[in-house]
Amino acid sequence: MIESPPAPQTLSKPTQRVVDWLASLEKALSARDVAAATALFATDSYWRDLIAFTWNIATSEGRDAIGAMLEANLARVDPSDFGIVGEATEADGVTEGWFTFETHVGRGNGLLRLKGDEAWTFLTTLYELKGFEEPTGAMREKGAEHGAFRDRASWLERKQRDEAELGYTKQPYAVVVGGGQGGIGLGARLRRLGVPTIVVDKHERPGDAWRKRYKSLCLHDPVWYDHLPYLPFPDHWPVFSPKDKIADWLESYVKIMNLNYWSSSECTSASYDDKKKEWTVVVDRAGETVTLHPKQLIFATGMSGIPNEPVYPGMERFAGAAHHSSRHPGGDAFRGKKCVVIGSNNSAHDICADLWEHGADVTMVQRSSTHIVKSDSLMELALAGLYSEEAVAAGVTTEKADLIFASLPYRIMHEFQIPVYAAIAERDAEFYARLEKAGFLLDWGDDDSGLFMKYLRRGSGYYIDVGASDLIADGKIKLKSGVTVTEILPNAVKLSDGSELPADLIVYATGYGSMNGWAAKLISQEVADKVGKCWGFGSNTTKDPGPWEGELRNMWKPTKQEALWFHGGNLHQSRHYSLYLALQIKARMEGLETPVYGMGEVYHTS
Amino acid sequence: MIESPPAPQTLSKPTQRVVDWLASLEKALSARDVAAATALFATDSYWRDLIAFTWNIATSEGRDAIGAMLEANLARVDPSDFGIVGEATEADGVTEGWFTFETHVGRGNGLLRLKGDEAWTFLTTLYELKGFEEPTGAMREKGAEHGAFRDRASWLERKQRDEAELGYTKQPYAVVVGGGQGGIGLGARLRRLGVPTIVVDKHERPGDAWRKRYKSLCLHDPVWYDHLPYLPFPDHWPVFSPKDKIADWLESYVKIMNLNYWSSSECTSASYDDKKKEWTVVVDRAGETVTLHPKQLIFATGMSGIPNEPVYPGMERFAGAAHHSSRHPGGDAFRGKKCVVIGSNNSAHDICADLWEHGADVTMVQRSSTHIVKSDSLMELALAGLYSEEAVAAGVTTEKADLIFASLPYRIMHEFQIPVYAAIAERDAEFYARLEKAGFLLDWGDDDSGLFMKYLRRGSGYYIDVGASDLIADGKIKLKSGVTVTEILPNAVKLSDGSELPADLIVYATGYGSMNGWAAKLISQEVADKVGKCWGFGSNTTKDPGPWEGELRNMWKPTKQEALWFHGGNLHQSRHYSLYLALQIKARMEGLETPVYGMGEVYHTS
Repeated sequence: MIESPPAPQTLSKPTQRVVDWLASLEKALSARDVAAATALFATDSYWRDLIAFTWNIATSEGRDAIGAMLEANLARVDPSDFGIVGEATEADGVTEGWFTFETHVGRGNGLLRLKGDEAWTFLTTLYELKGFEEPTGAMREKGAEHGAFRDRASWLERKQRDEAELGYTKQPYAVVVGGGQGGIGLGARLRRLGVPTIVVDKHERPGDAWRKRYKSLCLHDPVWYDHLPYLPFPDHWPVFSPKDKIADWLESYVKIMNLNYWSSSECTSASYDDKKKEWTVVVDRAGETVTLHPKQLIFATGMSGIPNEPVYPGMERFAGAAHHSSRHPGGDAFRGKKCVVIGSNNSAHDICADLWEHGADVTMVQRSSTHIVKSDSLMELALAGLYSEEAVAAGVTTEKADLIFASLPYRIMHEFQIPVYAAIAERDAEFYARLEKAGFLLDWGDDDSGLFMKYLRRGSGYYIDVGASDLIADGKIKLKSGVTVTEILPNAVKLSDGSELPADLIVYATGYGSMNGWAAKLISQEVADKVGKCWGFGSNTTKDPGPWEGELRNMWKPTKQEALWFHGGNLHQSRHYSLYLALQIKARMEGLETPVYGMGEVYHTS
Repeated sequence: MIESPPAPQTLSKPTQRVVDWLASLEKALSARDVAAATALFATDSYWRDLIAFTWNIATSEGRDAIGAMLEANLARVDPSDFGIVGEATEADGVTEGWFTFETHVGRGNGLLRLKGDEAWTFLTTLYELKGFEEPTGAMREKGAEHGAFRDRASWLERKQRDEAELGYTKQPYAVVVGGGQGGIGLGARLRRLGVPTIVVDKHERPGDAWRKRYKSLCLHDPVWYDHLPYLPFPDHWPVFSPKDKIADWLESYVKIMNLNYWSSSECTSASYDDKKKEWTVVVDRAGETVTLHPKQLIFATGMSGIPNEPVYPGMERFAGAAHHSSRHPGGDAFRGKKCVVIGSNNSAHDICADLWEHGADVTMVQRSSTHIVKSDSLMELALAGLYSEEAVAAGVTTEKADLIFASLPYRIMHEFQIPVYAAIAERDAEFYARLEKAGFLLDWGDDDSGLFMKYLRRGSGYYIDVGASDLIADGKIKLKSGVTVTEILPNAVKLSDGSELPADLIVYATGYGSMNGWAAKLISQEVADKVGKCWGFGSNTTKDPGPWEGELRNMWKPTKQEALWFHGGNLHQSRHYSLYLALQIKARMEGLETPVYGMGEVYHTS
């Protein structure tokens, strides 16, 4: 509505500062002058790189580490064309700006935060490989071939032929074990990159991992956080997807994205041939044994790994039903029954509420303190800035939100989280008081940094409240807290305070082991120990022992076992990090040089 | 990247002109001063309204007609809040600007073109009803209910209960007969507007109308033109969707949009009770007879209506296979066979090419001239400005493109089309010369206005070349042109020039009747004659007899039969006009006053 202003003569101060810094960096990098480059960073500074410089997911902390990283990689990476995107902003003494850049092999996005004229946080990410760009937009396939061809194969015939051949007369380059949301999203990225891939899943239909669970299950994260790659939910999608709806979405997604998805298929073993550089993966495909020989093997088996099955004296004599939470079918069969749920994290709460809704007599056994956050508070105070309708309206696309989140180094992330949870504690003080009055043992994490840090450090220890906490506060779900289980009696659970809880059903909501348990189960204990524990980064807090490792162990990046990868996390992480995992695999398939910088030691095997 | 300019003091000239015109219009309309309002329009001017002022799809041509329309509707509509959107543009003496406005019951979008200070074309469209906005974005449903509820019904259980009840213990408000792309897109809009609807389709699975046809079938229009409402194709979708791929998309879409879609169901009869204001619709649902009582009945049976089955002497004695093009299964069974295809439009060409690809000996019988356009030329010269990757990049969203297209009144649309096809004729001159040399009879429409006008006026008479024309030019598909069929012999087709074409297969690519044939078949001949012919607008050109009616007959708007509607057209039209049809139905369901202005006479019954 306005006349075009005269050509701008001056940049805003924040923008000028970012432009100048990027120019200085480019000058130093072009001159291969590592000292000059590191001098642009503050003493306390962090360069987080997602495969652009390091072919790894790695954070270099401080000038020395940044210098070492550059010494090792600069010549090969040959970075160039750093350019600001949009306008920089400034708040609380921090100047923030988006940029793009190129490397010898690809194109990248990044986010820079300056304190004064020195970099505080610097994120570099690779988003595509030169010469291997995804065929999208104007580059998309033509589709139906115009012209006339004798005995043409139709799209359907070619698709059916490809499906019949792959895994039999043609070997996939990659096999993804596990076809939940993680495996499906990664499968879509590999498909778009032209990496022949089979996704193996034990269930009959995509989405069954959701469908088969208790009926009140739903996503605890809101829709803006949950998009899969490429195909966002339509704009009427509910904030919290019910389990069957997300299951149907996944099933449609597999079809629309044209994945080679083997349902009713279970990987039974895998071994790596160091000489041939090739896996032997044995799959039971609906009763047929198929042996695959991919070059890359990805476990997308759920970041929670294999269920922790507890061992208590007397378990074998229990007369009722008993199972791990992962096998809990829902409360239909337990109306009027006495149910004891051992555990007090997400699953325990969900299952207690589900049993109560079905008219069961439910007792939760809380063995140690738990962090509780109301879903609404989490959404409004912790997520809304990045993942909400308001964020979208403010131009924070899902892609941008993912990068902003990724730009905060783990070393200092808790500092951003602590005030959020302090605000939540204040807002919901009355709620927490009621819970404590009912005897519930609360915590906020070792350093009061709340839910997301607990999730990253240990993947457990919390419940996003969608209703069960009120049942506990009101005594509708009975609570025994601060006790442990000492013995299972034929009709009861015996606790460390000497009391007994009569039980027709025991649910062991006792959590999961590390994902490398899958390597132990399917490959060998030796390989599982070689790659070590997955998840956590050595924060030296409860269940995340040190030393400091700086990035989630083994996730989406090379492991100590060549050609073995772990993929997982929540929908946000799977969506974002599947990009880097897919590019790492594509680069190897195309024979690009992919030296991995910063492979750490393995300090923990489980 | 630039400092904010000082607050603008002046608008650009085109923008100022549009702002001023809209202000003058609003002033006149607010004062209910029809004379002042009509004075703002040029002598040759067009106000096209899509249900915002007229509850009809109607173009008022010239000041008198505009005045009459306003006299009839202005007080009730009570339009207000006209405001420009973005900047106006000016080219070739025409100023163009987008605007929004409100009516008493809803909100609208529009596009204005001025010549000087007078309106030349003026489009008004309603996009939502106040109080009945679609729950989208921040208004979306919460989804899973947080909290604990004894014996809660899950999303799946509620869905299953709704599906079991609708049509049995609860009546749908609307029934859509035909679940191809048209019925599916309309069904999605009605679902989002909360109109209980059943979509009835005879096939086993959504998309089967595509799946079951000859295997080389594909969309002849490019992907940018073909989006369905709400859920655009992902950005890697091929330019021309193969038939099985679009079929799978439709099947997923039905599930994702949660339609009440009755597969394997055929409507066998329908009748309207004038007193109860209700239909009785009998459906054969996989062998079960179900009687439905909707308030509104929509035929989305394909705008082509019922196949024209020709009658020739001797047909009953033909020894080979013979069928209408709509039942042609593909060429697999006809390798080495002599095949005669009667007709020379799209289906005839596709089927000839398909038969040739399968090694048949094919002859096309061309009875009259045909308009041919190469697909690439159509895409680049006729569609690219509105529907292409470049258009998207230039900010022409699908929604905008649809409105721009809708803003051109049918009375003058051919004037915009003629130069496009003149350019195509020049560009592809060598191609057309080769076709004519092979004996093919070409035309460009009565007034050289080409494909889209033929499509709108008569829905036939053309082929979008995706390969068959070269086969004809090269003699690979044999051609007999300028002849008619006089008799079918036991083993041959006899033509008006006395020649005989030996035949093992005859395909009658003889087109389709008007959609009101469906009313004759399912309701009564009386109702079919009352509503009259569908499609065409009285251009007084071949197969579109006058008098001038100005809008496509009976499409997406009220008909002479209360509560009976016709929906159809290509993917672009179905996507766009389903909005207005859905809003008309929603308004009636909610009891809004919906007086229809400008119901024309019925001049033709078929």
